Amino acid sequence: MKNYVHGYSKRESERLEDQADTLSEILHYDTEFPPGSEVLEAGCGVGAQTIILAKNSPEANITSVDISPESLSSAKNLIENEKIVNVTFKQADIMDLPFEKESFDHIFVCFVLEHLLDPVLALKELKKYLKKGGSITVIEGDHGSCYFHPESKESVNAWKCLIKAQQDLGGDPMIGRRIYPLLEEAGFKNVQVTPRVVYVDKSKPALVDGFIKKTIIAMVEGVKDHAINSGLINRGQWEKGIDDLYKSAQKDGTFFYNFFKGTGIK
Amino acid sequence: MKNYVHGYSKRESERLEDQADTLSEILHYDTEFPPGSEVLEAGCGVGAQTIILAKNSPEANITSVDISPESLSSAKNLIENEKIVNVTFKQADIMDLPFEKESFDHIFVCFVLEHLLDPVLALKELKKYLKKGGSITVIEGDHGSCYFHPESKESVNAWKCLIKAQQDLGGDPMIGRRIYPLLEEAGFKNVQVTPRVVYVDKSKPALVDGFIKKTIIAMVEGVKDHAINSGLINRGQWEKGIDDLYKSAQKDGTFFYNFFKGTGIK
Repeated sequence: MKNYVHGYSKRESERLEDQADTLSEILHYDTEFPPGSEVLEAGCGVGAQTIILAKNSPEANITSVDISPESLSSAKNLIENEKIVNVTFKQADIMDLPFEKESFDHIFVCFVLEHLLDPVLALKELKKYLKKGGSITVIEGDHGSCYFHPESKESVNAWKCLIKAQQDLGGDPMIGRRIYPLLEEAGFKNVQVTPRVVYVDKSKPALVDGFIKKTIIAMVEGVKDHAINSGLINRGQWEKGIDDLYKSAQKDGTFFYNFFKGTGIK
Repeated sequence: MKNYVHGYSKRESERLEDQADTLSEILHYDTEFPPGSEVLEAGCGVGAQTIILAKNSPEANITSVDISPESLSSAKNLIENEKIVNVTFKQADIMDLPFEKESFDHIFVCFVLEHLLDPVLALKELKKYLKKGGSITVIEGDHGSCYFHPESKESVNAWKCLIKAQQDLGGDPMIGRRIYPLLEEAGFKNVQVTPRVVYVDKSKPALVDGFIKKTIIAMVEGVKDHAINSGLINRGQWEKGIDDLYKSAQKDGTFFYNFFKGTGIK
């Protein structure tokens, strides 16, 4: 009966995707670059995605840049500890890169545009360093996509504090839904955007722990001081909000968040 | 290069799923029942899902019930016009079905639980008519999953009027996220829930027209009188809200909505 209830064989991999139990699988199962290709990772931060890129494409030459020397230092340590040899790091500003124009086959930008005041300008700038026919890959979240069960006024407000805090810093935490028009406006061709859904219920314990608790709630807790000090919420409401968020990770809880992955060709 | 940017071959079908261009494909590519099986469609309404069930499982015996004689009459006409012969209609209340206990191999319930005051009680009642080892399939939307670009205060408020209007009728328009705990609470085993994402940008013209305009905005416009007459919104704000919703169907617009499909075994 299972064959009938759960689908045509040609859809089997879609079902597997639904059952992916780590964020890395959901975002990166199709992040792979050919042997010998030159790949620029723009804004590598502390190397969380770098390590996945390097492992998925062990024969590509990856150049990872970030503006922060401290982040780069962490990223280098991470890569060295894993004995990965196909990554070169360079401290640089995305808006003023120290490379030859049209020198990369592929550019990869993950969780970067959300922080920028003018993401289209950044995409246009990156495009200069891409060979004609080369691809760009952009991954971003969308904090407006998040909902959960059970919900309370306080847990929803705690989540809204995260959004407001990121907006206060000049970013757009709801940028995911804009990837398609942003890539088009920057002049990329053949733009394709796919949603990357993280749906969690108790049948997926790795995501309950790794995503709801250690990614999402940890991220919300990171804006606690800003939220309380700037008067977005009072301390009691905040504490109840966090407690209530944890209920989505309990027996009857469910959680939903959506990322977007877009590609375009120069 | 396409092979590398767009994925491993084993994920090809997932990519195809992302590109599904009708709601029916997204919800029903895996709705199929074996030849000779007895299938109960509980709450068939005007037959919108019945026709898909019957075509996907032409050798299953489908019994479709609804409480409304008017809806059943429409459903019958639809099925007869398509010359479909494997559907039997019966006017009946889900809470008091005129069948032998344990007489169905599969039960299918789509866009029904959202309208009920006690969905767990309904699931428990349906379970009586399912053979041991038989399956239930439940599909529901979640109006809290909806977002779009561009957004305005008015378009978001028009959407919230839809939610409020359905809540005023005693239903739960955010029931999608609860399918997993509802099926568990009703005593089904091996519960599996998958999100069914509808993401629309201008690269998917069939969904721009068929989903954003003809499904979503049409549904919102259906509560216009209730929303204005009950003071949820004033006429000017409503008109601007609808105009702004249409912007998500234009050149730079994007739209996101999520359904959930759950299965369980008795």
